[in-house]
Amino acid sequence: MTTWLPTLITDTPEEGYELAVKMARVAIKMTQPDAKIREDLRPKYAGDFDALIASSQVVATHFAAVAAANGYWKNT
Amino acid sequence: MTTWLPTLITDTPEEGYELAVKMARVAIKMTQPDAKIREDLRPKYAGDFDALIASSQVVATHFAAVAAANGYWKNT
Amino acid sequence: MTTWLPTLITDTPEEGYELAVKMARVAIKMTQPDAKIREDLRPKYAGDFDALIASSQVVATHFAAVAAANGYWKNT
Amino acid sequence: MTTWLPTLITDTPEEGYELAVKMARVAIKMTQPDAKIREDLRPKYAGDFDALIASSQVVATHFAAVAAANGYWKNT
Amino acid sequence: MTTWLPTLITDTPEEGYELAVKMARVAIKMTQPDAKIREDLRPKYAGDFDALIASSQVVATHFAAVAAANGYWKNT
Amino acid sequence: MTTWLPTLITDTPEEGYELAVKMARVAIKMTQPDAKIREDLRPKYAGDFDALIASSQVVATHFAAVAAANGYWKNT
Repeated sequence: MTTWLPTLITDTPEEGYELAVKMARVAIKMTQPDAKIREDLRPKYAGDFDALIASSQVVATHFAAVAAANGYWKNT
Repeated sequence: MTTWLPTLITDTPEEGYELAVKMARVAIKMTQPDAKIREDLRPKYAGDFDALIASSQVVATHFAAVAAANGYWKNT
Repeated sequence: MTTWLPTLITDTPEEGYELAVKMARVAIKMTQPDAKIREDLRPKYAGDFDALIASSQVVATHFAAVAAANGYWKNT
Repeated sequence: MTTWLPTLITDTPEEGYELAVKMARVAIKMTQPDAKIREDLRPKYAGDFDALIASSQVVATHFAAVAAANGYWKNT
Repeated sequence: MTTWLPTLITDTPEEGYELAVKMARVAIKMTQPDAKIREDLRPKYAGDFDALIASSQVVATHFAAVAAANGYWKNT
Repeated sequence: MTTWLPTLITDTPEEGYELAVKMARVAIKMTQPDAKIREDLRPKYAGDFDALIASSQVVATHFAAVAAANGYWKNT
């Protein structure tokens, strides 16, 4: 059985950040499951600064949880 | 007596994420209890990238609490 | 002396969620104390998906605090 | 010497909520110090549901900190 | 060597709040380094209630971190 | 192997703040990888107060995590 989110633990902060980006995107897929529509929307929001900043906000919120889960990688 | 939210504890991070999605949606149902109106709105916001990103933000906020409740699934 | 918020402690996660919904609404009443105006606004924002999502975000923020106050109902 | 924020400690959750409302308003006064302009703006945003919800979000964020400061009033 | 942010520790909650306001403003300066443009924008957003509320949200987020850093000034 | 985020630990609060600004920007690059488009967008959002405030909000969210990672620099 595969899962897209087996753990919040990552080796490095950068991998934790990439996980946060993924976590931000999955909710969008769950609300808009049609890949064709998402592909149509993507270039539009990637060229819209308000949307880019709002996306970055979602990443920041997920990153905070991932970082806490990893004890902030203090021993890395 | 049934409840839609018996516990914040889940077996895996992915189930915790799905719970966060559910928690984001219930508040919308409580503010707009008319299922017909919600069904009319759904395709509109699912095609609106600002709304998709904002929904993802709500999921992120709920996920942070669910993750903390589960001790970040460190022993999973 | 009655109070609308005697405690953050609830028996179950679902009651904690309902409390968070109440907490989100009280701030609106305090900023717009005129019940007539609020009643006029309500159907409008209940039919506006951006407003519904934003309301759900406020609930998520309050729920996080309520959940922490209850030790995430781990012993429920 | 008086201060508008001598402490985050309150006797009850409801007083903590009222403090959060005050904390949300002070930042607005500091950005728009002209009381006349603020008075002109007030009825406008009090009749605008997006603004009412956004204000409630600020209160929720401050309330989380006030609640943590008070140990969630668990011994109240 | 001077720094605009030598510490998060303040003597009082009110000074912590003022620090949070400063922290909210510095990010704006870093994104828009031209003081002339910022001065042109300032009266516009100070007369726009959505912007005033959004600014207050940023202050609330920074205040939460400053308050935690200071142990919520419990011994003040 | 280089990484843009080797650690969340910084010597000072100011360096932590600069790291938070960087963290806010990286998510935007990941969503809009075309440097030319980002350069075209930059002066537009740097002259738009809503975007400036929203950017500051993202920085605040990242700063909270960086500050927690550093124990709020209490021994600095």
